[in-house]
Order: sequence, then C-alpha cells, then structure tokens
Amino acid sequence: MQTVSVALGPSADRTYAVRIGPALLETVGAAVREVLPKVTHIALITDRTVDRIYGDRVAAALTAAGLPVHRAVVRPGEPSKSVRQADQLWGELIAAGADRRWAVVALGGGVIGDLAGFVAATLLRGLPLVQVPTTLLAQVDSSVGGKVGVNHKLGKNLIGAFHQPRLVLADTDTLATLPRREITAGLGEVVKYGFIGDRPFLDDLSATLPELRSQPDSARWPQIVAHSVRAKAAVVQADEHETGVRATLNFGHTVGHALEAVTRYKRFKHGEAVLIGMRAALDLSCGTGHLPETERDRGFELLDRLPVGPTVADLSLDETLAATGHDKKAEGGQARFVLLDGALGQATLPTAVDPDLVRDALRRLGLR
Amino acid sequence: MQTVSVALGPSADRTYAVRIGPALLETVGAAVREVLPKVTHIALITDRTVDRIYGDRVAAALTAAGLPVHRAVVRPGEPSKSVRQADQLWGELIAAGADRRWAVVALGGGVIGDLAGFVAATLLRGLPLVQVPTTLLAQVDSSVGGKVGVNHKLGKNLIGAFHQPRLVLADTDTLATLPRREITAGLGEVVKYGFIGDRPFLDDLSATLPELRSQPDSARWPQIVAHSVRAKAAVVQADEHETGVRATLNFGHTVGHALEAVTRYKRFKHGEAVLIGMRAALDLSCGTGHLPETERDRGFELLDRLPVGPTVADLSLDETLAATGHDKKAEGGQARFVLLDGALGQATLPTAVDPDLVRDALRRLGLR
Repeated sequence: MQTVSVALGPSADRTYAVRIGPALLETVGAAVREVLPKVTHIALITDRTVDRIYGDRVAAALTAAGLPVHRAVVRPGEPSKSVRQADQLWGELIAAGADRRWAVVALGGGVIGDLAGFVAATLLRGLPLVQVPTTLLAQVDSSVGGKVGVNHKLGKNLIGAFHQPRLVLADTDTLATLPRREITAGLGEVVKYGFIGDRPFLDDLSATLPELRSQPDSARWPQIVAHSVRAKAAVVQADEHETGVRATLNFGHTVGHALEAVTRYKRFKHGEAVLIGMRAALDLSCGTGHLPETERDRGFELLDRLPVGPTVADLSLDETLAATGHDKKAEGGQARFVLLDGALGQATLPTAVDPDLVRDALRRLGLR
Repeated sequence: MQTVSVALGPSADRTYAVRIGPALLETVGAAVREVLPKVTHIALITDRTVDRIYGDRVAAALTAAGLPVHRAVVRPGEPSKSVRQADQLWGELIAAGADRRWAVVALGGGVIGDLAGFVAATLLRGLPLVQVPTTLLAQVDSSVGGKVGVNHKLGKNLIGAFHQPRLVLADTDTLATLPRREITAGLGEVVKYGFIGDRPFLDDLSATLPELRSQPDSARWPQIVAHSVRAKAAVVQADEHETGVRATLNFGHTVGHALEAVTRYKRFKHGEAVLIGMRAALDLSCGTGHLPETERDRGFELLDRLPVGPTVADLSLDETLAATGHDKKAEGGQARFVLLDGALGQATLPTAVDPDLVRDALRRLGLR
C-alpha cells in the first residue's frame, strides 16, 4: 500500500490520507475506525452495479469493525447526479436516524463520489466523508480534492460544494473489473497530469500506455494511481478553492465540457471528452504562440495512443463553440483555456482565446 | 456605525466585518464594492414583505455602485426555507447568467438569510455572500456565524452548510418597522448571550428590556445589537464548526426546537420558542444541581419581562418530550441540554439530562 497525504490548512483534521494499493476494500472498517474514532454509523452510498460486485464485502468489513451500515443504492449513471436524487438520499438517511455521529462512505465511480459527497456536505451541515473510488477516473481524480456536487438541468456540476474527504481508499484491484473504455477514459486524466506539470511522467507513460490500456489487472496500476494522486494533491494543497493554480487541472476541459453538453452527457465518458478536449487545447496552445509545433505534435502522438470510440464528426461546430462560453469557468460568456506554455509539462492559468482560433481548432477535430 | 470583526482562521479573506448602525442600507453598494472588488453582478434575494419596504432602495444602492442586480423575491415565511425553493433559485440564477463573479445579497430576516445563504453556499460550489439582516433576530444571531440551510419535511435546518458571509450590514433603522412580537422574539436571543456568558450584560438588560420591547426605534438598539454580535462573534471565532463551545449558543434551544416541531413551526416564532426553552433550561440547571435556586429565580424574573403570547398549555407533554430527542444535537435519541453552571452567565456544553427531569420541567411550563 502507498499513502499520499493531502495537507490542507493548519488544523490537523483537514489533512487526509489517500491509501492506494490492492486488497484495500477489506480494510475499510478498520480504516474508518482509525481515522474517525467517534463515528458510530455508516451511510454506505453506492450504485446498483458497484453494489452487486463490492457492496456486501464493504458492508461486511464495516460491520465487522463495529460500524452498523445503512446501505443506500442508486441507479448507475449520470442522471443520478441530480438535486432530486440528493433530496431522496437526505430523506432516506434522516429517516434511518442519521445524526452527527454518522459518516458517509461513497463506494463507486465519479458520479457516486460527487453525489454522496454532496449529500455528506449538506446533511446536518456536513458529515464526514470517506471516498472508496472503484473506477480509474475516480481514483486518479474525482475522489481527491473535495469537489462534490450534482448537475442542474441547465448545466453540469452547477450545484455543489468543497467538502474534503477524511480518507480515500483506492483499491486498485477494482480496476480489473473495468471495461477498456472506462480505463481509456481514466487514462485521459492521468496523461493530463503529465501535460500540465510533469514531462518525465509523460515520457514514462508514453511507453506504458498500450499495456495499461489492455491490462486492467496490470501490476503497474498502484504506481500510476499514486503518481497521479500526488500530482492532484500538490495542486489542491496549493489552491484548495481554485482561485489560481488549481484551475490548470481543467486542461482539456473547456472543449471537453462543451462536447459533453452538446451530446447531453450521453455520448462521451467524461475522460473521453477530455481526451478530445486536450487535443484542441494543444492546438490552441500552438495557435496562440505558446507552444512550438514539435511539442504539439509530440502531444498529439501521445493522445493517438488513447483512441476515443465515439465520433465528433456529426456535431454542430456553432453549437459546440457556443457551449464553450457556458463553461463554469467562463466569464461573461467568454471561453477560457488552460494552455501549454513553452513545452509539454508547463501550463498557463485559464486564458481567453480568440473565438476564431477556437473555431479552427474545433474544425480540425472534425466538427462541421 | 459600529464594526465588529469576525476573524476566522489564518487566511485574511475569512475575516469579515459586521457593520451595525442607522442608515446603512444606502451604503450597501459601496460596501460590496469595497469588500468584493472583483464581483460584477448581484443576486439580491429577499421576500415579498421586505422587498416592498426596502427592495428598491437596496437595489438602487447596488446599481448606483455599478453592480447590476438580479432580484429574486420569494414568499415570506418558513415554508420558503425548503429544498424546492432553493432548487427554484438555483435555476433562476443560472438562467439569469450567474457566474463566479456574482455575489448573493440576502435582504431580510432569518428565513431569507438561511435560504439565500444556502443557495450562495452551493451554487457554482460557492458564491460570496453578503447578509443584510432586517429583523432583530437576524441581526443579533442568524446573519453572523455562517450557518445556512433549509428545512426537510422530517426536521428543521437538516440540510445546510457552513458558509461565512463576506460582510454583514445590520441597519438598525429597519427594526423600527418590526411588530412588537418580532422584537420580543429577537430579545430572546439577546438575553441568551447574557445567560450563557455575560452576567453584567444581563444586569444592564434587565432594566432596559421594557423600553426596548416597546420602542423599536429606541436609540439603544445599535449598542444592544453590537454587544450581541460581539458575543456571537467571540463564540464563532473560538469554534467555527461547533465542535465545542459554539454549542452553548443552543441554550434554550432543545426545548425550543421541540416546541416548534410539535406545533409544525406555525405557532411560535423561533425566538419565542427559545424564550420558553430557556425557562426549561434554567429549571433543569437547578434540578440537576448545577444552579442555585436564587439564580434560577433571578433568571425567571428576567424572562417574565419578555412575555410570550402563544400558549403551550394544550401541547402534548409526551410528544414534546419525544421531540427533544430528535433535535439535531441529540445523540442516539437522547436529548442534551446546555445548562447554566454555578451562576447566570456561565454555561456547560450540551449535557445529557434524565428524561424524568425533562418531563417535570415541561410540566412546570404548563404542558400536560
């Protein structure tokens, strides 16, 4: 097991550990006892798919540690990340007798982490949260850093909060049950860390991507996840509430979010949209004079090793361009992009870009 | 104008000022500009009653300072403090184009402060909040300290967050338009500060209560409000998230909340229920051996000067007793009480009390 510490602010109870390695699910009971000794009950929030594979094992591990479990199981998929679903969970947990000695354990992928995290952030003005991410994307990105929330029909992640977990358990054995598409999507966020701040990691990855992509049971996962979490932790520690450098984590996300929005969050997995978005961001980095062509092409080569299945060719260029201006980071309707600066591994803060350049970049992605 | 500073944590942007005095509404535009220089738009959230009296003046002051205003007006009264109303406001503000350069101004009493504060805490993961409280209760209590939230049908304030305002403007001129019942209710929280930590203030108050109660335009208000806010600020600074001493602010609230719950939040104003609850808490302080009878009687005398209109005589003692165990601070269904310890002006942390003693105290309040 590797442990990455996320140290936030001066008070000790705001520092938490991300434990990464195989066979961690069975340790969740003892780990919660250790980190949250005053907690008496657990609200275990998961989805039906994850519950079927891991629910009983996690519930048993908690119960064996003397922690009674109320298990709340929601439908798998993005539509569960809604105010309506959060409201249903608030009611269910209150009716189950939740008080301030309860903690929430989020068992699942990004949707579950965000939803359960939002419920934990807002029930009784905040219950302690333990993230047990079971997808690559959740392990390397969404379970760390405290962003929680639900979608609004007018946009994604518009309702939410910062609510840091008290513990994250990333059991890399769970990656073995993921479909390849899910692995590729997660690798999108992994290479992102290389692009924005870690050229050596990018070079290492470039050789191992094919193996990682085809072997969800690769022995390399603990190291890859730990490296990614360290990268995320460094940025979150420096800028918890995203007033500065944390925004670089949105590399590839301006176009990524726009692609998700115009396809109503149905066509692309988030990581897939980001993979396409990073291609646009590389293009814009070059077009705005921030990045040499050789570096851009090196980036393209890397992304070529993570092919995205769903097409963008039938999407409206105008509609997608407009959607970039509705991103949560947009200001006054103007899209802003994290660009690479000088070389791969160095990023700018979000920067306004001429819409004509964005239009060209979208066209080069294949939109018409 | 008096200013009370609430200093939270090491980062400067977590310290905020509570400005107290006459004629402050007109200064809101300049004040927001000064405290939040990057803000470009205001979501002004208020209720119909307050909007009719002050809405145009506040909106004009903001607009004159170069801050365009989106005004969102909800129905007056506790039912607006709901998930449904919050959801409606989220949608309304998103549709109006809210981005991270917007701030929320809450203009009204406790319901508006809690509701608008919750919307500010959760929209786009948190927008800056300015509280402009227009009732005595909101000025001396709910606008300071960062507790925001909405009710759930299973209980009050069950959904919420800690979201500190960036500025509080308490214009004491607004107290002149309050009905006497509202003033009495607010004075309940004022005397509470005396009971839990400030015997001299209690002695001063005792002489002035009749004047305050009958003169909402008394020149004494700025001083009374400022003293109360200083008391609240001291406790919030010491324990922002209520892991310790902040819980003493719940003196009188265990029975108070139970009385509100069994009357479905319709019969009593919150401060009225707390006035009755403080009587029970004084009684229990004495019954558990914490407080001499002479001190208890001194407390009763003071409370006699703040008579509560609505009766408790027809309420079910059993039902009310059960409701004390459902309080948000209850643990495992057992009610806990802040007691006075040794003398008026000194409080314990929440303490479990024998239900038979609670039953006796409720009987002495007149419940059967």
